[in-house]
Amino acid sequence: MRSWTRIFRGKSALVTGGLGFIGSNLARTLLGAGAKVTVVDSLQPEYGGRRRNLAGLSGRLAVHIADIRDGRRMAGLVKGKDYVFNLAGQTSHWDSMEDPMTDLDINCRAQLSLLEACRRHNPEVRIVFASTRQIYGKPERLPVREGHPLRPVDVNGINKLAGESFHLLYARVHGMRASALRLTNTIGPRMRVKDGRQTFVGVWIRCLVEGRPFEVWGGDQRRDFTYVDDAVEAFLLAASRPEADGQVFNLGGPPPVSLIELAEVLVEANHGGSFVIKAYPADRKKIDIGDYYADFSLISSRLGWRPRTDLRTAVSRTLAYYRRELPHYL
Amino acid sequence: MRSWTRIFRGKSALVTGGLGFIGSNLARTLLGAGAKVTVVDSLQPEYGGRRRNLAGLSGRLAVHIADIRDGRRMAGLVKGKDYVFNLAGQTSHWDSMEDPMTDLDINCRAQLSLLEACRRHNPEVRIVFASTRQIYGKPERLPVREGHPLRPVDVNGINKLAGESFHLLYARVHGMRASALRLTNTIGPRMRVKDGRQTFVGVWIRCLVEGRPFEVWGGDQRRDFTYVDDAVEAFLLAASRPEADGQVFNLGGPPPVSLIELAEVLVEANHGGSFVIKAYPADRKKIDIGDYYADFSLISSRLGWRPRTDLRTAVSRTLAYYRRELPHYL
Repeated sequence: MRSWTRIFRGKSALVTGGLGFIGSNLARTLLGAGAKVTVVDSLQPEYGGRRRNLAGLSGRLAVHIADIRDGRRMAGLVKGKDYVFNLAGQTSHWDSMEDPMTDLDINCRAQLSLLEACRRHNPEVRIVFASTRQIYGKPERLPVREGHPLRPVDVNGINKLAGESFHLLYARVHGMRASALRLTNTIGPRMRVKDGRQTFVGVWIRCLVEGRPFEVWGGDQRRDFTYVDDAVEAFLLAASRPEADGQVFNLGGPPPVSLIELAEVLVEANHGGSFVIKAYPADRKKIDIGDYYADFSLISSRLGWRPRTDLRTAVSRTLAYYRRELPHYL
Repeated sequence: MRSWTRIFRGKSALVTGGLGFIGSNLARTLLGAGAKVTVVDSLQPEYGGRRRNLAGLSGRLAVHIADIRDGRRMAGLVKGKDYVFNLAGQTSHWDSMEDPMTDLDINCRAQLSLLEACRRHNPEVRIVFASTRQIYGKPERLPVREGHPLRPVDVNGINKLAGESFHLLYARVHGMRASALRLTNTIGPRMRVKDGRQTFVGVWIRCLVEGRPFEVWGGDQRRDFTYVDDAVEAFLLAASRPEADGQVFNLGGPPPVSLIELAEVLVEANHGGSFVIKAYPADRKKIDIGDYYADFSLISSRLGWRPRTDLRTAVSRTLAYYRRELPHYL
């Protein structure tokens, strides 16, 4: 626990998507810092929420099972909070193409509704929004900086872009204290491993723990990975610094690797396992972004954030967690 | 009537927002070209729809009073059509800030719903979407080309950008025949003159016809204006040319003028009248885009479109229409 996190002591924080991967890790850290924590999560089976993610904390925080699309319920939950960490979302790019209206209702419409609730009932609240590298689309140049054109290649990206834009607009026009973090692949304990709806890495982890070979689609794509503790620190930094208000920051990670390199790191950290390389599926190719890795110098210089966890450590900790916990995540 | 419009003879076309300003002018031209025309319009009093806009055409086209947010109704209407001209929208920037959810439901959510209906029930239909220069935000350089960054400054711009993005995505990923036109200020007969919800020029026209001075806010801002007949031609061209599919084009007009110059052209064309210059209202300044005029060379080179109507002629024809018709538009 870093010393500056003491500013959260006694403060009240709402975490949307708080039973999910990053949300639950964030809620745990906030509790550790002495904050009064409320989480809201829909626990829809296709998304990242799991009661197990907050196991052992019963009675130490308030858990509301509610859908962020329920505007009235959300209005009640934002009242009186010092912070809203806004992480609830539909994350599957593929699902967003199959069922675009649901993606829109969660990632776009509910976000505007939540901001309206804050504007009316709690205009002083500080909000940090979980945005995504997906809004850049296929990178024109690498590493990607925040000023890169925003040309999302799927319904999820279009809706997340609108959701982020609403946050920044409400900061600029209404003077609200909202910022956004554009996350790249995030890995760590409590990630979804049941399927690839959150990230393909979850599927790989599961296969390794179950002793099955996993599939690498393509393999040459280069990507960056943030360990979840580092992502959590970025959320807390953005919430704690007034200079973050109205700003958007990329997160990133240790030097990027190709997917084949990542697969090799995983096998090595697991002390065994195997993978097969498959051609990238033609029907998904249309919404693939190819190589991506972020330039995260803006958040480094402005807020002092940097990734502290190397890839090998990130992978080892994640594997250790699922060797113990996998049955709870299937 | 240009000779190439004969391709619409006997074809069926749906015009959303077809009782509105541009929609009704488009519907009239399509009828003249021999198309079977269906219009759908919600006739909500704050928007541009007026029965008067299709006066004299009773029995020659099908008019449905329906809301594009009514997905089931819209699904029925797109079936079997050769063309969908998708012009329905909420146009007021100011209203989008006061009532953002309504703007989202019309300009973003209903657009995706309409595209889904086409994908399921009529995937071969050719769609032209009325987008807007508002999605560029405050121009970084002038004239604005299609590759200019998209940084909308209000809720309306964010939602229209999402609406446009869905159209282009459905073309790219699903192979649908959709294109988009980024309209700038459009003027002409059948525009809304009751208030400034569609364009401030409507208010000016009304004041002139009523013999009252009109207000110019600021005055130095430079803008371009498209005459409605030219805009209609662009919609028909985009619908008639396969090379438009998946593309987005700026519209523009005669050389840009400052708002004071426009005011002077109006007074001169009206053979009298006056205006007062007022400071730009502080509360609206935050969502003002300043100078804007488009580079429309892309649609000129690809589709052969150019504005044919000079500003003086556009203004004179508009004034002549409202000198006769104003009582029907209040």
